[in-house]
Order: sequence, then structure tokens, then C-alpha cells
Amino acid sequence: MATVPLIEYGEASPEVRAVYDDIMATRKVDWVNNFWKALANDPPTMRRTWESIKEVMAPGALDPLTKEMMYLAVSATNGCAYCVASHTAGARKAGMTDAMLSELMAVVGMANETNSLANGYQVDIDARFRER
Amino acid sequence: MATVPLIEYGEASPEVRAVYDDIMATRKVDWVNNFWKALANDPPTMRRTWESIKEVMAPGALDPLTKEMMYLAVSATNGCAYCVASHTAGARKAGMTDAMLSELMAVVGMANETNSLANGYQVDIDARFRER
Amino acid sequence: MATVPLIEYGEASPEVRAVYDDIMATRKVDWVNNFWKALANDPPTMRRTWESIKEVMAPGALDPLTKEMMYLAVSATNGCAYCVASHTAGARKAGMTDAMLSELMAVVGMANETNSLANGYQVDIDARFRER
Amino acid sequence: MATVPLIEYGEASPEVRAVYDDIMATRKVDWVNNFWKALANDPPTMRRTWESIKEVMAPGALDPLTKEMMYLAVSATNGCAYCVASHTAGARKAGMTDAMLSELMAVVGMANETNSLANGYQVDIDARFRER
Amino acid sequence: MATVPLIEYGEASPEVRAVYDDIMATRKVDWVNNFWKALANDPPTMRRTWESIKEVMAPGALDPLTKEMMYLAVSATNGCAYCVASHTAGARKAGMTDAMLSELMAVVGMANETNSLANGYQVDIDARFRER
Amino acid sequence: MATVPLIEYGEASPEVRAVYDDIMATRKVDWVNNFWKALANDPPTMRRTWESIKEVMAPGALDPLTKEMMYLAVSATNGCAYCVASHTAGARKAGMTDAMLSELMAVVGMANETNSLANGYQVDIDARFRER
Repeated sequence: MATVPLIEYGEASPEVRAVYDDIMATRKVDWVNNFWKALANDPPTMRRTWESIKEVMAPGALDPLTKEMMYLAVSATNGCAYCVASHTAGARKAGMTDAMLSELMAVVGMANETNSLANGYQVDIDARFRER
Repeated sequence: MATVPLIEYGEASPEVRAVYDDIMATRKVDWVNNFWKALANDPPTMRRTWESIKEVMAPGALDPLTKEMMYLAVSATNGCAYCVASHTAGARKAGMTDAMLSELMAVVGMANETNSLANGYQVDIDARFRER
Repeated sequence: MATVPLIEYGEASPEVRAVYDDIMATRKVDWVNNFWKALANDPPTMRRTWESIKEVMAPGALDPLTKEMMYLAVSATNGCAYCVASHTAGARKAGMTDAMLSELMAVVGMANETNSLANGYQVDIDARFRER
Repeated sequence: MATVPLIEYGEASPEVRAVYDDIMATRKVDWVNNFWKALANDPPTMRRTWESIKEVMAPGALDPLTKEMMYLAVSATNGCAYCVASHTAGARKAGMTDAMLSELMAVVGMANETNSLANGYQVDIDARFRER
Repeated sequence: MATVPLIEYGEASPEVRAVYDDIMATRKVDWVNNFWKALANDPPTMRRTWESIKEVMAPGALDPLTKEMMYLAVSATNGCAYCVASHTAGARKAGMTDAMLSELMAVVGMANETNSLANGYQVDIDARFRER
Repeated sequence: MATVPLIEYGEASPEVRAVYDDIMATRKVDWVNNFWKALANDPPTMRRTWESIKEVMAPGALDPLTKEMMYLAVSATNGCAYCVASHTAGARKAGMTDAMLSELMAVVGMANETNSLANGYQVDIDARFRER
């Protein structure tokens, strides 16, 4: 259970409502997920975080689906249950198929395995990797 | 410095050389990076890890570049210096541009930020995220 | 659900009860939280951990509220749900206001973001930071 | 070694220089640390990250020293060498004494210990911690 | 709740059933745990992961109980609730007593504490540790 | 480079020297590693940490070698370079063979892989694992 109240639209200040409205408009949905209702207890952080996510997740050199899948890969690595749930949903909405999810998780698993092996043996970085 | 000797091709057993040869052939390069030279102290783990990586990183529902970038996203999150160095190089070789690296890291940064916020407020998972 | 039984006061050994009594007396409360009831399965670790926490969290160069907030910042970073719940409560009891919690979490979020960026780009440590 | 070039002031674009100037003016120093020189390869992330840090680390319900120490506590927990070096320096500059650093680290150590114990025994969250 | 369906034996493909059968035969049990029912959505990863675990956890220079306890130590450190639950059960089945679990967790706690202290002070690696 | 001075025996206070003497006597060596020289800046934490480690690492239901290997497994998972170096040396001194190190790391790698898969799919804990 969240350690702060989840602030619903009806009880939100105009500043918070404006962010809620922008979230719904940007995502083309009619609801806001709990992450934002928790952050709404701290309007400056909420606004800043939303503006940052909107900027970061916008299409650019990488498409939105790839970005959502990367977000999910990080969330799985960190073991953040909320983030895995929300970004699995987000990635599916952006077009992630079952096969893509399977491959994504297989990569995440391998990366976590070999990260611990490289750290566990303290492998020296190859000089060639330092060339630019 | 690695906690085990790095085994060079010339001193490797035939079993290890066979894996080295397959790594070089698969990657179309004439050298093997230190990660494998450390794992070569444990040929079964080396062989199994290489076979797994070859299978996981092969093109499928996701292309090799996307997979390399996900590997890098996980490695940055785990703070594995060796893995960041090797997979930045790997992703660049697979076609990652400077702009793609920038966007990848921006996503990694945001994901780590919001993962800690969701965990820090213990936000309840929305019922909608549980629908399949 | 805990992987060991939670040992209640009524069924505890005299050694465990002595620690429970000291926890309640030190905190000026009439109950003991589940963390200690789980550790009570291992009295030496329970006693050692309690003595250490009592020593570490006592007022010193840092006040107890600051220490509780740092404990919460670490717990949020590690994603430990139990620890976030208990140390949010503990910090509130020590005087943490809603505004302080908001700012604490904003710092935790930024720190996790920039930690992953510094690791992700493998930024070289500035010589000036090495001066003492 | 960083995986991207460190961009010095003399070779920076006007957009990047403006951020460098603001960093130096805000901190009242005549140099910029490598973290920003790495991020300068991605001016939008650099600008956004700096604006966010400036907002988050400003005095508020928590003073700047407490915020710097929390940043250090998170960085030590994540094992980010760069971040530990820069935020130890930053906290010292903000007034952290040797005794405060010692107590900070003792809290970080205890928190990481008990986080792993609570996770390791999967301790159930007390109903009382869920009350608001 | 899992983000993918849990595939029961009755609805599984022959390929998946073969792995289920091997899991039950190897473990001498008549059921399969949810981890495999989730992975069954991705048969190649399921098969590869099972073959790898079977190879890694087999008796060798280390006995199966020691390996199960190490698995639990890693899972507690990562805060993976599922893994703690399954490997506590697995280690108990392999012979872990209450006293062994207590000592295991005490070691895990100390290791996480001193890991964060070594990282938090950025302690230099002793030259003697680099000798082989 | 450590963020605090490393305090050598010759410049240490009697309180710190007493701990150094006990470390050397307990380990039957004539030197003290840098971890303790860093902690010596904070004698109470140094003394408390040493007393705790001596208690935790003593033979009990688990032998010292198993405990050292668990310590190493946690350190590899956390990516603590100092701790990997010191506990690889410590485990070797306690009798860890090359084959044991190989198997230990293979377990650590698998555990980190499957931990991220269980988290990444948010697998539900089996009711059977909750039975005691």
C-alpha cells in the first residue's frame, strides 16, 4: 500500500489537474495511473517528472516501442513490481508482441547473468573497447 | 585485475579453442575479448554461456541492434563497467549512432529515477495493469 | 509471507524477550514490529543487529531524523518494501513532514537517475575529486 | 574511460556553454566536472538534468547539506564510484564534517544489512505501518 | 500477478510438456512451480534455462545444498521475493536446517553491509589481493 | 582512491591498534587490509563491524569456507570490486579450489539470470512455497 494518499482527479488542485489532463491527452486515454496519483502529493516533482518523461519517450533516433521496451528491461533488472506492470502494459500498447516480450526477457536474463560473471571475476576491460 | 588468469588462444585447450573459433567466426572478428578468456577457466560454463548468448542475441522478433541496446541498458543499470564497455562497443558495431546512445541513456536514467520513486512511495499496482 | 515463523512475545525465550523489552523501552512503544519477530528465530543475530542499530541510530553528529531519512533513502533505492514501510513510519515519528518526504524522494529519484548515467557513460572521476 | 568524448568548454556549442556557465555560477566555482562534459554530447538531456538537479537540490524543507548527504547515501548503495567521489566532495563543501561522514556511512551500512535481512526472510509488513 | 499466462500441463505443447516431465523427474516431485509455467510462454528460453540450471546445480566440486544456499543468498541480496520463496524451499528440501538458514542470512546481511561500506568509502584494493 | 585517509598501524590510536591486533591474531596474518584502514577513521563503526564479522564468520552450522563463498557470491552480485577481490582471496585461503570458484560463479550467474526473469514476468509465488 502506498505510503502517501493517492490523489484522485476530483480532489486534485488545478496545478495537478493540468498535469493529469496532459497525461491523458498525450496518451489518448481517459484515466491516470497510480504512479502519478502518488507523485501528485508533490506537484513540482510530479510536473518535472512528467515533462521529462514526455521529452525522453518522444519518438527520436529511437522509436517509442524500443524506448518502452528498454524501460521494461531496466524495471525488470531493478525488480520494481509497479514499473514492470506499468511498462509491460505500456510496451504492449506501443506494439510489443508476445514474441518480442519473450526475446526482451531472454536478453534481460542473459545480461544480468553475464554482468554478475564479469563483476564476479573482475574481468579487465579490453584496450580495444576503449578505442573510439 | 581479474581474479583468474586470462587464457590466451595459444595456451587454450582444444575445447576452449573451439569456442574461441566459433566466437570469432560468428562475430567475423579475429580476436576474443577478455570476458571469454576469464570464463575459459571453466570450460563448461564458457561453452554454455556462449551457446546461450548466440541463441539469445540472434535476430528474431527483435533485431540484433535492439538486443545489444537492451543489453547495454541493463549493464548501465547494474553499473557493470566491463559490460558497459563491451556492449557499448557491440551496439555501435551493430549500428547504434551517437543519437541512439544518447536516447538510450536518457531512457535508462528516467527508468532508474521512476523505479526508485515507485518503490519509494510503494505505489499500488493499478487493476488495469493486471488485465490481460 | 515470511519464510520463518514470527515469534510473539508470549512464546519467546527470556533472551529474546529481553531484546523485545529493550526495543519497546528505547522506542517508547508497547509493540515490536515483524522484522524483530522474524530475526528472533536467530537470537544472536537479533541481539547483535539490535545493539548495532541502537548504536548507529543514536543522536551524534547527525540527528535521529536525518538518520531515519537516510535509512529510507537507501531502502527506496534497494526497493525493499518492508523497509520503506517501516522507515517511512519511523521517519514520520521522528518528525518528517510531508514536504520533507517529498524532497527526500525527489533527491532519491535524481540520485538514481544520475548514478545510472554516470555508470552508463563510465565517466572518469575528476582529479579534483581525489584531492583531500 | 568514458564511452563518449568529454566536451571541454572551448569546443562546446553555445547551448552547452550556457549550461556550463549556469553550473559554474550556481556553484560559485570556475570549472565543470566530467559528468556534465559527458552529458554535453546530448544537450537536451544535459539541460534537462541540470535544471532538474538545480530544482531538486535547492534549499526547501530540507537543507542542501542534508540533500547532498542523501545523494551520497544512495550513490554508496548503488556502488557508483563516480557519484561517490563527486557527492562526497559536494557534501564536504556543503559542510559535512568527518564525523558526519562516518555516521552517514554507518547508517548506509546498517540499512543495506537490514534491507537484505527483511528481503531474505520476506518479512510481512506490519498492519500498523500501513496506517496513515 | 504474472504479466503472462501461467501454462498448465494440460494445455502445454509437447515440447513444453517434455521439459515439465524432466523437471518433475529430476526433482522427484509431481508438480511444477510457477516460474516454469511463466517461462513456458517462451519454449526456447524455458528449455535453455532448465538445461542450464540442471547442469549448474548438479553435484560437482560443490554439493547441491551449498549451491542452493548460494542461490538463496543471491536472491535475498537482489530482493527477489519469488526466488527467495522458491530457493528457501529448495534449500530446506536439500537439507538446510533452521540453524543453517540463520547463519546464511547473517552472512548475507554482513556482506551487504560491508559491500556498501567498501563502495561508500571507495576503498583501494590491496596489492596483496591482486597476487595469484 | 578512498575518500578518507587509510590509517596505518604506526599512526593509529590505541583503540584502533587493538582492533588491528585482533584482526591479525584472528586471521593469523601480519597485515591488515585497506577496508579496516578506511573504517579506522570511525573507530566505533570499525570495532562494531569487526566484532560482528568475527561472530558471523565463525564456524557454526556452516563452516568458514561456505561462509566465505557466500560472502563472495553476494559481493559478485552487488558488483563490489573491493569485496570481490578480498573475499576471493579469503575464500581461497579458506580452501576454495579453482573448481569450487568456477561452480560458485556459475551459480551466481544463473541466480542473477533467473532473479531477473522472475521479476521481469512478476511470477506469482506458489502456495506450496508458503507452507512451513
